[in-house]
Amino acid sequence: MKNQETSLSEIGLYGLIQHINKKISSQSTDKISSYGEDAFLYKSNEEQFFSQTLMLEGIHFDMIYTPLQHLGFKLIVNAITDILAMNSLPEKISIAVGLSKKMTLEKTDLLLDGVLNACKKYDIELISFKPFPSLTGLSLSASVIGDANKNSIANRNGAKPTDVLLSSGDLGASLLGLHLLEREKRVLQDVETAKPELDGNEYVLQRQLKPEAKIDVINQLSKLNIVPTSMISIKEGLANAIILLTKSSEVGCRIYENKIPLHQETLRVAKEMDFNPLIAALNGGEDFELLFTISLNDFQANETFISTFATAIGYITEKEKSNRIISLSGDEIDIKAQGWGEK
Amino acid sequence: MKNQETSLSEIGLYGLIQHINKKISSQSTDKISSYGEDAFLYKSNEEQFFSQTLMLEGIHFDMIYTPLQHLGFKLIVNAITDILAMNSLPEKISIAVGLSKKMTLEKTDLLLDGVLNACKKYDIELISFKPFPSLTGLSLSASVIGDANKNSIANRNGAKPTDVLLSSGDLGASLLGLHLLEREKRVLQDVETAKPELDGNEYVLQRQLKPEAKIDVINQLSKLNIVPTSMISIKEGLANAIILLTKSSEVGCRIYENKIPLHQETLRVAKEMDFNPLIAALNGGEDFELLFTISLNDFQANETFISTFATAIGYITEKEKSNRIISLSGDEIDIKAQGWGEK
Repeated sequence: MKNQETSLSEIGLYGLIQHINKKISSQSTDKISSYGEDAFLYKSNEEQFFSQTLMLEGIHFDMIYTPLQHLGFKLIVNAITDILAMNSLPEKISIAVGLSKKMTLEKTDLLLDGVLNACKKYDIELISFKPFPSLTGLSLSASVIGDANKNSIANRNGAKPTDVLLSSGDLGASLLGLHLLEREKRVLQDVETAKPELDGNEYVLQRQLKPEAKIDVINQLSKLNIVPTSMISIKEGLANAIILLTKSSEVGCRIYENKIPLHQETLRVAKEMDFNPLIAALNGGEDFELLFTISLNDFQANETFISTFATAIGYITEKEKSNRIISLSGDEIDIKAQGWGEK
Repeated sequence: MKNQETSLSEIGLYGLIQHINKKISSQSTDKISSYGEDAFLYKSNEEQFFSQTLMLEGIHFDMIYTPLQHLGFKLIVNAITDILAMNSLPEKISIAVGLSKKMTLEKTDLLLDGVLNACKKYDIELISFKPFPSLTGLSLSASVIGDANKNSIANRNGAKPTDVLLSSGDLGASLLGLHLLEREKRVLQDVETAKPELDGNEYVLQRQLKPEAKIDVINQLSKLNIVPTSMISIKEGLANAIILLTKSSEVGCRIYENKIPLHQETLRVAKEMDFNPLIAALNGGEDFELLFTISLNDFQANETFISTFATAIGYITEKEKSNRIISLSGDEIDIKAQGWGEK
């Protein structure tokens, strides 16, 4: 297999760019009129959202157990979640990739396939996929442009006391998927053809390797004519998201341990690995869910429908009450964030 | 010195983000209404340019001899040159940085200082500077948004036979600066306080370490009411730029060896290092100049003024005549591009 792959030095940088452009061109529309130029021309509304994210080998993914197609997909999910977190929809995405010698034309294709699949699924235009040489592993950078609708933007700073705090999905699964993969990594490294023992753990593994973007939440809220009073992405654990949101809004909150959504597979795997699932939810990462607040009135009027796409986990308080989680036993525990490199 | 620096794990990811945001906020204007959110809201004209670039440690810079302030400045120059190459002006820039443990708060500040200096100098709004942890060295990603004026956009594909081919500045100096730095690298590594022997070579070193962006060229062309028939950035040598431009325009060209602009210091350093300066110009890199074509009429009517900001190096031919350089002795030599990893 390996010998049949095409090395990047064989195809050359410009050959690779041509190959990529040809592959993407089927996706390209007349909105992008300068494909293959130094910069890309696009039409836009008056107000736009822009966000940028990096994913680096060794920190954000391990090439040993990460299928490249999944990685390409996950890059898009990661990037567009920042736009979703403004209660807005992503429109265009641009990717820059640093490719080391480990990569081949075929591997680059798999990565691009994942990117294209995600763009198709989420109806986003890929405006560029630009390769750069890299010495230090695979580096992925994504920039997203979204159309901002002034009437429905949600910022981090609008949460008010009595607002209901909601999560768009279950938490902690991605971290447990990562722990499973790390546990199996030695097996994968030792035996060329080894199949890791991952059967039955598909959910937590998928949450880690090929998560989904919560575009549906934005659409459902829009259908209900509800503009969340605040919103933020959950990328580095629920605790971090809560602290950033409440700090920005100058409020506090109470959340209930028994309301935090945990998938049954998360609970089972956590038990098997002797890991506290609550810690996974609070201090995990890469859940790519949305944390948001809506007014108590909006919530009560639509509770049944809202519960089809989000889970109420607590409520906003005055700032003085700080951020606390109410445990199963009724104790109140401070919610603390994690810092750089502590994960 | 080293002991007085603040490690990134000490300040933490959110501490660093706060520190950066505070530092940038003086630059921020009311056009950016969502600083510190998941994405950034900005107002735009109907048509925009977008481009993205990566700079990776080990490939694009060596931390041993690269002052971080210069690196921050160079990142901006590198990124905005892509917008300039559309004969357009950059407006907003967003940076994502992968920071390894080698970086400290103070080093991150130096990098950001360079970024802010360049943004100030070139009148660009820094809309974000987002840190990410990195295991594999310093990774820099920049995304630029520019306003596109439909009446003055230059693409790669508009060059016509008899058009004059021009370079916005001298070439090859940056590569020779790099060679000088590589030669002195061992000295820098061996002796903690060594001052490398770089005196008298300031020009080529500056071209490598802290190049300038050619915004003035776009402004001068605009003053003359001249829209170039085609334009491209010179980032990976003149030969690559010529080949991409002529291929896209479906034309050929003749350039004259004795017209290629070479700085006198480039010639002297090349001689000292026994390196052919023509090769440095053709196959070097990181000149960050612009290659463009203008009609013979436009050129002849404004030759004196144009020569204050660009150098005519040849002319466009029919495609069948291919791309050739006419040497000092009158020989015609094919212009060839370089591929991946051959530099």
